[in-house]
Amino acid sequence: MPMPEQFHDIAKRVNNWGRWGPADEIGTLNLITDEVVREAVRTVRSGRRVPLALPLRQDGVQTGAIPGRVNPLHTMTSVNWQLFGPDTVATSDDVVTMGLQAATHWDGFGHVSHSGRLYNGRPASTVTAHQGAEFGGTEKITSLVSRGVLLDVARAHGVERLAEGHAVTPEDLDTAEELAGTRVHCGDIVVVRTGQIQRYLGGDRQGYAYPSPGLSIRTPEWFHARDVAAVADDTLTFEVFPPEIDGLWLPVHALHLVEMGMPQGQNWNLEELSAACAEDGRYAFLLSATPEPFVGGVGSPVAPVAIR
Amino acid sequence: MPMPEQFHDIAKRVNNWGRWGPADEIGTLNLITDEVVREAVRTVRSGRRVPLALPLRQDGVQTGAIPGRVNPLHTMTSVNWQLFGPDTVATSDDVVTMGLQAATHWDGFGHVSHSGRLYNGRPASTVTAHQGAEFGGTEKITSLVSRGVLLDVARAHGVERLAEGHAVTPEDLDTAEELAGTRVHCGDIVVVRTGQIQRYLGGDRQGYAYPSPGLSIRTPEWFHARDVAAVADDTLTFEVFPPEIDGLWLPVHALHLVEMGMPQGQNWNLEELSAACAEDGRYAFLLSATPEPFVGGVGSPVAPVAIR
Amino acid sequence: MPMPEQFHDIAKRVNNWGRWGPADEIGTLNLITDEVVREAVRTVRSGRRVPLALPLRQDGVQTGAIPGRVNPLHTMTSVNWQLFGPDTVATSDDVVTMGLQAATHWDGFGHVSHSGRLYNGRPASTVTAHQGAEFGGTEKITSLVSRGVLLDVARAHGVERLAEGHAVTPEDLDTAEELAGTRVHCGDIVVVRTGQIQRYLGGDRQGYAYPSPGLSIRTPEWFHARDVAAVADDTLTFEVFPPEIDGLWLPVHALHLVEMGMPQGQNWNLEELSAACAEDGRYAFLLSATPEPFVGGVGSPVAPVAIR
Amino acid sequence: MPMPEQFHDIAKRVNNWGRWGPADEIGTLNLITDEVVREAVRTVRSGRRVPLALPLRQDGVQTGAIPGRVNPLHTMTSVNWQLFGPDTVATSDDVVTMGLQAATHWDGFGHVSHSGRLYNGRPASTVTAHQGAEFGGTEKITSLVSRGVLLDVARAHGVERLAEGHAVTPEDLDTAEELAGTRVHCGDIVVVRTGQIQRYLGGDRQGYAYPSPGLSIRTPEWFHARDVAAVADDTLTFEVFPPEIDGLWLPVHALHLVEMGMPQGQNWNLEELSAACAEDGRYAFLLSATPEPFVGGVGSPVAPVAIR
Repeated sequence: MPMPEQFHDIAKRVNNWGRWGPADEIGTLNLITDEVVREAVRTVRSGRRVPLALPLRQDGVQTGAIPGRVNPLHTMTSVNWQLFGPDTVATSDDVVTMGLQAATHWDGFGHVSHSGRLYNGRPASTVTAHQGAEFGGTEKITSLVSRGVLLDVARAHGVERLAEGHAVTPEDLDTAEELAGTRVHCGDIVVVRTGQIQRYLGGDRQGYAYPSPGLSIRTPEWFHARDVAAVADDTLTFEVFPPEIDGLWLPVHALHLVEMGMPQGQNWNLEELSAACAEDGRYAFLLSATPEPFVGGVGSPVAPVAIR
Repeated sequence: MPMPEQFHDIAKRVNNWGRWGPADEIGTLNLITDEVVREAVRTVRSGRRVPLALPLRQDGVQTGAIPGRVNPLHTMTSVNWQLFGPDTVATSDDVVTMGLQAATHWDGFGHVSHSGRLYNGRPASTVTAHQGAEFGGTEKITSLVSRGVLLDVARAHGVERLAEGHAVTPEDLDTAEELAGTRVHCGDIVVVRTGQIQRYLGGDRQGYAYPSPGLSIRTPEWFHARDVAAVADDTLTFEVFPPEIDGLWLPVHALHLVEMGMPQGQNWNLEELSAACAEDGRYAFLLSATPEPFVGGVGSPVAPVAIR
Repeated sequence: MPMPEQFHDIAKRVNNWGRWGPADEIGTLNLITDEVVREAVRTVRSGRRVPLALPLRQDGVQTGAIPGRVNPLHTMTSVNWQLFGPDTVATSDDVVTMGLQAATHWDGFGHVSHSGRLYNGRPASTVTAHQGAEFGGTEKITSLVSRGVLLDVARAHGVERLAEGHAVTPEDLDTAEELAGTRVHCGDIVVVRTGQIQRYLGGDRQGYAYPSPGLSIRTPEWFHARDVAAVADDTLTFEVFPPEIDGLWLPVHALHLVEMGMPQGQNWNLEELSAACAEDGRYAFLLSATPEPFVGGVGSPVAPVAIR
Repeated sequence: MPMPEQFHDIAKRVNNWGRWGPADEIGTLNLITDEVVREAVRTVRSGRRVPLALPLRQDGVQTGAIPGRVNPLHTMTSVNWQLFGPDTVATSDDVVTMGLQAATHWDGFGHVSHSGRLYNGRPASTVTAHQGAEFGGTEKITSLVSRGVLLDVARAHGVERLAEGHAVTPEDLDTAEELAGTRVHCGDIVVVRTGQIQRYLGGDRQGYAYPSPGLSIRTPEWFHARDVAAVADDTLTFEVFPPEIDGLWLPVHALHLVEMGMPQGQNWNLEELSAACAEDGRYAFLLSATPEPFVGGVGSPVAPVAIR
């Protein structure tokens, strides 16, 4: 089934192709100017750092439902190895095999194509098994630091977490923005909290994965209007899943990654951040969230930190 | 050959065991207080972000000399896969296998033991193939953000890069500190530049690896005196290699990781940072360098960013 | 809880340490002489080859219960890559990450130790993260070809498969040997069929893994008396699980691998073989089952073939 | 540059598409009938087994020249792990990451395409990152056992090993067949010895890889005329490399894998076999060489054994 008219209508309205030139590979990250960063830095008051990454472990969020996206397998290549002889220093070394999108991560622009196209009109065929994403690989994101704003939709709704099938709407974002007490603006990284990750933290991996609350197909226009640089949330699917429109799969992925050229983050643990923001009523912070620079990566792990 | 007297003398002087309690697992990172971070934030002027990570690629810095520490092998598990049928969105996914210390990384406390002990007196045997580092795994470093100070030893010496066997001494650090125009203090992350990484960037992987300039056995006392939180440099071996004292292998590793409980970083690309600092004479910056939180990791990749 | 007296009594009776010299690393495989192979070859009548391996796939028998023993993750490093230019040949390449015991495999002697010892009295400490099994690694098994005899316990009992907790006893083996119509003798590879693998083949991975029928602690003496070279079966646990004696875990593993120095095979698919043997009443065949020669491997995948 | 006329001429003459029906996925392996195996078994005289696989180790034959085809990385996930408590059995477990064609292996039909086609006219696009080879994956080769014939070209020429650029011709095969004293016939596996692997065994990995003697573009017709089931040799490139005809890359691969549907084996260690055959003048044997059944594999490791 081809993408429906409704999708293409939105796509036209949020499309950023060519906006930063035909050679651009970082999309909305262009919006993070030095000035934006200077302002982001000014949000820091206490100096407290709040980590937003899930620990990387074999018992991670992946259930096996997404083929190949394996939880981190951490193994040792040496343990207290006395290379230099007895009574000398001993070294231990480790390796990992993991899906780049297995845990807390950013989706890169190579992750999704539709109608044969990637962000900025690049042919989908430029993603290959041989070199991954020729354009827009995660190594192109050499830094990702900006003002972060927590839109705590769950808290704004007065619930611990959103219901399973809750599609987070522009109206939800407005409400959460009101709670945040700051207007989301150009170059911000928006962090949307549904509370869904509590399921994983509580031991219910299947329940975390599916069904899941998440962003509605209507939110990309909201993000586009505000010209945000990136959006992350605390779910596996990022957008509401199963989808709102029958047969229209991953429309938010397609709009963000392909049309807007906007990185999106998944599996972020926002629980501690939510508590911290609620405590002092400050929902904006300096967010440092640079992904690992995998050459050709279509996704990449990140250990984001909110500095408040 | 057991560690010589000279080593034990220094070890006694820099030892931090028990300083933050017997249960402590993050050592000198305790020195990064909220106040330290607030001050670090105040160093930001332009908002420019300078990345310090090497891109992660199969053609990375590892030569095969360190068994098992493999360069990143990035492979695709799907390429434009139309899971949901023809004309729908297509997804691409990737995985990686890599040594956690293969590229730009932090050494964790599990990486080195001597005399059967790890940081804080933990038995070396608590590192196992089964779970990696039981204590001081890299997942315990939930954030690593502080004031960074570039000690540009190469530039202070007026050379492009230090000679192969140059052991960076406390006096070298003093000279570079003078160039930096700021005094290194408690909680700082010191970034020492030798220029050695130019060899790798220029295509000479073997020459980069060995022989290498790097920190002298005398520098841990300097770092201890200043109570820095962490130290990173732009070499593969971190310390001068081959070692200064015949038969005394990796003494700086043993002093930093075991005695002081201080994370150390390797393979940081400091070339762009060096140019930026020299340009405006500001050598202090906000450094965001949180490692990926591998549970039990004895090392971990990091994508550090200097925010100036 | 230390191993009970009962275990040590059996251990003494089946112990093969020193039998093939103090340097021996292949144990009972020494029993496969040229003469044994010549006789094995004589069992071939029809020329039909029956494969006994499970296909290697991500959806394999592992459930995640055994940490690190991951199902095969097969990924592509190139797909129709035209290295030499357009209109030339295109190549595809693949890699795998997998637990060496994840699917149809042999256990090597490094897999299990008890009381600090491996086969032939080697210290357990000779297995290291750095090099795997220093002694008795799977690369030492340069060939594994002999007469195979199917002991079809399920069929001998007239059932499709043995009950969950069924411990296969020496008496069961006697009954199945009677059905086989050939006496198991020195150098044979005994293949014991419980039918348990039907659970996995039918889609019930958990049910396959546990609880499982399997060999009783009393069978090693039977195998020792017959001086068989190796034993394989169609279960995940090899021996009955949970164990027969409370608190005595994996006693058959310990007796076979440590005391006898006898390789044991798991997850063998014996369904087609069972039908073939039943059809013509011939239960002996030429069995070719050489493991992949991983240096230091404590286990190794194998694609066994019965040639009838 | 498209494949030249000369290639297409040969291709027409050796093409097997449709020969075993349009659904066939095993090509010339269809030639190994029960009768062929019965005859193969009759070649066994002494019962001696000669292994033909290289040990699987990180220090293997790959030099890094073929992207992604990594040497085996063998790591431990547990070492003497006492899961069940102190004084119980301890278990060690291991995993591997490796290129499926990294060491001694068979090429599957998915490995090479030309002009958009795979064996039996399947579209090249049926090989995908998502599932590997949809047709002709290595799991389709459920057994590979037949009569093996060593064509010892080096010995027939009276040299230790062939010169670097030696293209093994049909005439060379004739000469070696004469030495072998047996006529290669339908269903045989031909094992061609150049002696090149001595370079690797002697420590010269680069010299082993390239330049290399190997099969000439004229040999596929020889193999086709004899209707052999498979061909293996003791080189990395299989065919002579650099190629005989300027700009015609891997023509033998294209003819064997695409046109004939004939598996080909590389990196086989034929040194011990050569000595054994020369000793008693018997060059035919039972060859057991079933690859690991990776689902969708375009290549697969094998531990071949010649049973004499």
